[in-house]
Amino acid sequence: MSAQHIGRLAVLGLGLIGGSLAAALRKRGLVGEVVGWGRRESSLQQALQLGLIDHYTLDLAEAVSGANLVVVATPTRIAEQVIAGLAGKLEAGAILTDVASVKANVVAAARSSLGDALDRFVPGHPIAGSEQSGAAAARDDLFAAHRVILTPLPETDAAALAKVQAVWAATGAEVVNMPVAEHDAVLAATSHLPHVLAYSLVDVLAQGERGEAVFRFAAGGFRDFTRIASSDPVMWRDIAVANRDALLAALDGFSRNLDQLRGAIERADGAELHTVFERAKNARDRFARQLTAPSTISQE
Amino acid sequence: MSAQHIGRLAVLGLGLIGGSLAAALRKRGLVGEVVGWGRRESSLQQALQLGLIDHYTLDLAEAVSGANLVVVATPTRIAEQVIAGLAGKLEAGAILTDVASVKANVVAAARSSLGDALDRFVPGHPIAGSEQSGAAAARDDLFAAHRVILTPLPETDAAALAKVQAVWAATGAEVVNMPVAEHDAVLAATSHLPHVLAYSLVDVLAQGERGEAVFRFAAGGFRDFTRIASSDPVMWRDIAVANRDALLAALDGFSRNLDQLRGAIERADGAELHTVFERAKNARDRFARQLTAPSTISQE
Repeated sequence: MSAQHIGRLAVLGLGLIGGSLAAALRKRGLVGEVVGWGRRESSLQQALQLGLIDHYTLDLAEAVSGANLVVVATPTRIAEQVIAGLAGKLEAGAILTDVASVKANVVAAARSSLGDALDRFVPGHPIAGSEQSGAAAARDDLFAAHRVILTPLPETDAAALAKVQAVWAATGAEVVNMPVAEHDAVLAATSHLPHVLAYSLVDVLAQGERGEAVFRFAAGGFRDFTRIASSDPVMWRDIAVANRDALLAALDGFSRNLDQLRGAIERADGAELHTVFERAKNARDRFARQLTAPSTISQE
Repeated sequence: MSAQHIGRLAVLGLGLIGGSLAAALRKRGLVGEVVGWGRRESSLQQALQLGLIDHYTLDLAEAVSGANLVVVATPTRIAEQVIAGLAGKLEAGAILTDVASVKANVVAAARSSLGDALDRFVPGHPIAGSEQSGAAAARDDLFAAHRVILTPLPETDAAALAKVQAVWAATGAEVVNMPVAEHDAVLAATSHLPHVLAYSLVDVLAQGERGEAVFRFAAGGFRDFTRIASSDPVMWRDIAVANRDALLAALDGFSRNLDQLRGAIERADGAELHTVFERAKNARDRFARQLTAPSTISQE
């Protein structure tokens, strides 16, 4: 049995991410048995028909019974509740991880409910997604060449961390460790704030005096800029609330920069505008050359 | 000779837009002769070699001598100077149009310098572009299925307007008329403001404590959102200054909307966040279904 092999895997939440992780591990022969759990039986039946799981249950205790690795792959807000609900149900020695987009709230839920099992909880977040959602969109290569951030706690057992790292690495992902607060600040800046800005811009234009007619004259640049405003409003509501403090900090930093640009526009200060625009273009061009991941929307 | 036929066309500025217009009209046999003018001889030589023009000159008076239609296709800031420079040089009856991204400043330059020729000036703006620039990127189908906005003045001669409409329609574009102020407000909202927001976001992140390392954890959504921050800083500096008033109005409207969202995040007001995000998603989804134009960056 290799270091990555998992006897029994419990996937709690069979959406795109949970389904893709199950698919990736099954394809590589790294898992003996996969049990699915979820709140909606239809998703579980679909995952079963797609061969992502071996069987499923709607009973959380039954789902994690005998599982060596438990992955919480529900939406962000539900993840807190599911983790709290796992208290006392995990096998001795079972490793627990999750995939939620915000880590501080999930960690707080784990800390207040898991007791001794906290040291085998390895919080995680795969930076991967797709324009589609649900088990039907699951792909065994979804994580290839993508990054997975793990945010181990001071209490986290080294062997548990190594196991979760090995599992993600086996899917083709690049695994990076980061403190919880650092993760939430980085994701607020690069993902949560851009979503809020895109939603806000589309909303203010659609609510304006011209209404949606204004979009008739928008071109491809606007389409790309606002693509993330087509993301799931429920998921992004939950992320904005869960990561409130880091998101507000990122938003306020952005607003200060934008205020300075506003001043330069008002003064018709071409030199200042050119400095900022060129600096941003150079940074963005460097970023674009490094980025190889395909376009994603929903689960960042 | 068809209604669209042009005996002699003068294209002032042989970049992507000027070159593509020449290519589109030549391909359709709608033009007898094309004369190029520009500030850099290298661009003109390239346009000549590509067969976009029949000959060129660095002398503005010579370029428009005998021309039935004169198209100012230089960058925004230069367009004002070129139009002012045309005073007294146009043939009697010649029609003048332009392609600049902002119209109020170009119209002001025309009004203060063209004298009697003002009534044959038809300000225009094709909403088309490409990630490439320059004559080498010219395509005879660049305007197909794209919109061209014309902003005729109270003085504009009806026959001149009809001629310019027919010329653009012949390239496959959909031609729309709009007042100058309306054009500048619509473009500020759908193009100029998004560019400022994208530049500002990339800049604040790159200048932050993590520097450009933060981009390492950005995904496809961020890449799309910031694509327009890779646009030409000189062009966008000039557009921001030329369309200052409309851009500031759009920016202030956006900031008010963003402030409200900020309040909802701070209060953890999930209901309000959901309302705004869902409203924006629905508007954006409707827009995306209507938009068929390919991705563009530079010349919006």
